[in-house]
Amino acid sequence: MSRIGLRLHPRCLNERMPRRLRVTVWGENVHERKNPIVRQIYPNGMHSTIAEAIAEQRGFDVRTATLQEPQHGLTKSVLEETDVLVWWGHAAHGKVNDRVVERVLARVWEGMGFIALHSAHYSKPFKRLMGTTCSLTWREAGEKERLWICNPAHPIARGIDRSFEISNTEMYGEPFAIPAPDETVFISWFEGGEVFRSGCTWKRGNGKIFYFRPGHEVYPIYHHPTVRQVLRNAVRWAAADGAKWIDTCPQIPAEKAPEPLTAKGPRLHRGGEKGFR
Amino acid sequence: MSRIGLRLHPRCLNERMPRRLRVTVWGENVHERKNPIVRQIYPNGMHSTIAEAIAEQRGFDVRTATLQEPQHGLTKSVLEETDVLVWWGHAAHGKVNDRVVERVLARVWEGMGFIALHSAHYSKPFKRLMGTTCSLTWREAGEKERLWICNPAHPIARGIDRSFEISNTEMYGEPFAIPAPDETVFISWFEGGEVFRSGCTWKRGNGKIFYFRPGHEVYPIYHHPTVRQVLRNAVRWAAADGAKWIDTCPQIPAEKAPEPLTAKGPRLHRGGEKGFR
Amino acid sequence: MSRIGLRLHPRCLNERMPRRLRVTVWGENVHERKNPIVRQIYPNGMHSTIAEAIAEQRGFDVRTATLQEPQHGLTKSVLEETDVLVWWGHAAHGKVNDRVVERVLARVWEGMGFIALHSAHYSKPFKRLMGTTCSLTWREAGEKERLWICNPAHPIARGIDRSFEISNTEMYGEPFAIPAPDETVFISWFEGGEVFRSGCTWKRGNGKIFYFRPGHEVYPIYHHPTVRQVLRNAVRWAAADGAKWIDTCPQIPAEKAPEPLTAKGPRLHRGGEKGFR
Amino acid sequence: MSRIGLRLHPRCLNERMPRRLRVTVWGENVHERKNPIVRQIYPNGMHSTIAEAIAEQRGFDVRTATLQEPQHGLTKSVLEETDVLVWWGHAAHGKVNDRVVERVLARVWEGMGFIALHSAHYSKPFKRLMGTTCSLTWREAGEKERLWICNPAHPIARGIDRSFEISNTEMYGEPFAIPAPDETVFISWFEGGEVFRSGCTWKRGNGKIFYFRPGHEVYPIYHHPTVRQVLRNAVRWAAADGAKWIDTCPQIPAEKAPEPLTAKGPRLHRGGEKGFR
Repeated sequence: MSRIGLRLHPRCLNERMPRRLRVTVWGENVHERKNPIVRQIYPNGMHSTIAEAIAEQRGFDVRTATLQEPQHGLTKSVLEETDVLVWWGHAAHGKVNDRVVERVLARVWEGMGFIALHSAHYSKPFKRLMGTTCSLTWREAGEKERLWICNPAHPIARGIDRSFEISNTEMYGEPFAIPAPDETVFISWFEGGEVFRSGCTWKRGNGKIFYFRPGHEVYPIYHHPTVRQVLRNAVRWAAADGAKWIDTCPQIPAEKAPEPLTAKGPRLHRGGEKGFR
Repeated sequence: MSRIGLRLHPRCLNERMPRRLRVTVWGENVHERKNPIVRQIYPNGMHSTIAEAIAEQRGFDVRTATLQEPQHGLTKSVLEETDVLVWWGHAAHGKVNDRVVERVLARVWEGMGFIALHSAHYSKPFKRLMGTTCSLTWREAGEKERLWICNPAHPIARGIDRSFEISNTEMYGEPFAIPAPDETVFISWFEGGEVFRSGCTWKRGNGKIFYFRPGHEVYPIYHHPTVRQVLRNAVRWAAADGAKWIDTCPQIPAEKAPEPLTAKGPRLHRGGEKGFR
Repeated sequence: MSRIGLRLHPRCLNERMPRRLRVTVWGENVHERKNPIVRQIYPNGMHSTIAEAIAEQRGFDVRTATLQEPQHGLTKSVLEETDVLVWWGHAAHGKVNDRVVERVLARVWEGMGFIALHSAHYSKPFKRLMGTTCSLTWREAGEKERLWICNPAHPIARGIDRSFEISNTEMYGEPFAIPAPDETVFISWFEGGEVFRSGCTWKRGNGKIFYFRPGHEVYPIYHHPTVRQVLRNAVRWAAADGAKWIDTCPQIPAEKAPEPLTAKGPRLHRGGEKGFR
Repeated sequence: MSRIGLRLHPRCLNERMPRRLRVTVWGENVHERKNPIVRQIYPNGMHSTIAEAIAEQRGFDVRTATLQEPQHGLTKSVLEETDVLVWWGHAAHGKVNDRVVERVLARVWEGMGFIALHSAHYSKPFKRLMGTTCSLTWREAGEKERLWICNPAHPIARGIDRSFEISNTEMYGEPFAIPAPDETVFISWFEGGEVFRSGCTWKRGNGKIFYFRPGHEVYPIYHHPTVRQVLRNAVRWAAADGAKWIDTCPQIPAEKAPEPLTAKGPRLHRGGEKGFR
């Protein structure tokens, strides 16, 4: 397909044309089916609303997957073809199959971005990536939340001016048992008096991780324009910059050592043998 | 017990007298029982040699525990009474009971220090705390290693001048698939040409974590005076500074909110209800 | 001096008896002399009030120093004998002599702890240690502040339960232009709707740094019991754990290299020559 | 300009067409003029060789600037039009005008990337951004260096397989007095036995910073293909992702507070007044 008369950026011409950014939005899809309030706000499930928000960005191919699907919709090939995985879970964390979790983690470590939303702080993948309890305090009182940007020029905060409000939310409060984030993008103020690090980034292996707090199931938070903007910004931010990090633990025998080397002393392993894991 | 004539430091008088620092050294004790070379170097097991090294520091109470013991010797009460847990494992990572692992993690998050030695990079507790694969490259050729100090005044490097050598080691090389350490204390140079971040620190919850590379089973590395010095330094460093972080995820109802708050909007949970986990 | 019947901790007996922790509290002492409100709250200057708070901890030797003194009271020997320097400045940052600043920085890098209070976010030493602008937003409206603890067991938060309030403060709001802290100890909630990372730690060289927000000159904040507790906790936390890091940039000539080495190729410097700086 | 038959990526069409990435390579240009060996290797100065290496990447507009130019070639408008500044300096750090340094720092904090090469560890801008001494050990003996990649998929390491060697270098050794890097991309092994963190990243304000060690003036290191590849990768990595962070420290008066707020208590500043700086 051509475009006559368009000034093409040299980078678009010279680099391998980047494929479209492929996003999978995973939702446990439990509240939506059980709770009429939730169903009214999110008729096709929160995951669909989130996916639609992300798909407003052209250049993104967005699909969804839910707990109820075989392998929770996260087959090896779906994950292979996912650049960024977005996760919403709450009541059914324990029902997520551990083999699927391992598959997700392996892809994150290779380079798949991972975005954990709201109650996904207690999801299996997020807790495994953090290595902490990820506990917090909380309250369901429909109070106001105001998210402040800690770094005005951060790509995840693009298009937002200083702060934004969400009228009715479920409060999350410190202490938030996470490892010190690489970057704190948002901190929230709550009407009831609490604060919370509501937008945080980490790197695990080659995977970029973003936790974003807003999102309670009985409020229309994923219809909020700024929340939707953050989701799109975060997905772009989380996509891997480079190649895959293929995990290996190879033995480099003496004859292959970069420097001349004669083996000395006793050995447990034979040359070329795989190690223990 | 009194000491006449001794000038007592005011801090010793005024603070709650600190109990002795309690250390548990865990070893899988597999190679020692199967391999005559290992048995010759470590007749009572590597864990005993490590424990003796640490116990050279007065003020430390050191015990050992092994894989073969009931609950791997890491019962709830042993862990409750452990300030720092030192871990050596290699061939039997997979045999460590997952419930014991969860118990260890819970204590680390409360404040128990954790020191992972050598092949414990692939131990269940270390991988869970890191949230990465912890892979590396390796070679068994008895080559020389030189550890350099990256921060001369770091407490873990106390008593060591610039660098120290170990004549025969098993090489570990970058890339080491760990999250960016809070601090890099040692970096190693290998005769065969590789490098490795051989002393790294992290914090998870209230637990301080130190990974220390030297330690192959067929070499007398845990008899090396400087290695033993680092173990003592690291144990002191890893002990918690303050109280325990008891993990909770409490609901703070509207009437208990710090600011006056009227509940608004629909709710999923009843007031006072425990959340999902 | 002896204490009969006291059970002495072995560590107190066996280690080199630690000298008392020496603290210097530096205040610019400008508002105190010009503003009657400030003078009424802090008759001997904020620095004296802060020093008294810290001196409540036995084992601390606390002195003060002010802008008006020769070399601002921070002579080479005062700094040599200071384990932790606490800094309050506001209206006269620019009047701090640059040579004194360099002296302070050199000591921090050696291992002197540095605690920057409130408006010291714009002090010369703090900005130099951070390498950022350290800007923020602010408001003088006497509003309420609530500081939340992000890590309940952190030594700086010792003795404080979850959060504490200060009735009248000067608001500071995000974005706070600091590098990502190593640890975020406190985050503040303000009556007017803002949030702020009000307790943050960093390491620079061998020096531990803590920024603590509360402290406006026209409010009695340094008389607040919990603020005073934090000051004492922070001073203990900030004291160096180990030896000094003496800054050097030595040339290690080929004949002194750890490995056998023959010099090859052209050279700019003669052997043994000092490099450029 | 059009391209018939080319499949155009939607992102190239829909986003504001990115302007070409603008790079300024600053060299002190002292050795080149004084030392015939340097002049032979770098006839137009190291800065020109570095600039040519970077310009091999289409989409980059590269210029140079030197110490001798008015304002060292780093006028306000040059810096305004620079996305990434690359810096090589050695013998003349002290000659760099402090006002120019402040201008460079201000642009980094806004979002200009900064790449410090080799002896620029002691440059004024790098030391200011780090907040540490940036000291190290060194040796001029033309020894071999091997750089290892610590994160195989890192964009700065793109196109490089595991490690690469430089035959003749000037050794830099740990301890390297930098703050803990956000990411360690490369660690070096030296023939003489030392190690060094030779590729490190940090963030200061909105600016991304990369330190890259190779580069001694009497060796043809900037003609090395892999070194040149890293320079191109690093420049792309260092360019800001988003908007500028314009530094401000505004007073937000009570009537403009996000929450209803009545001013209470005494004040130092009048409403709307600028604060102290």
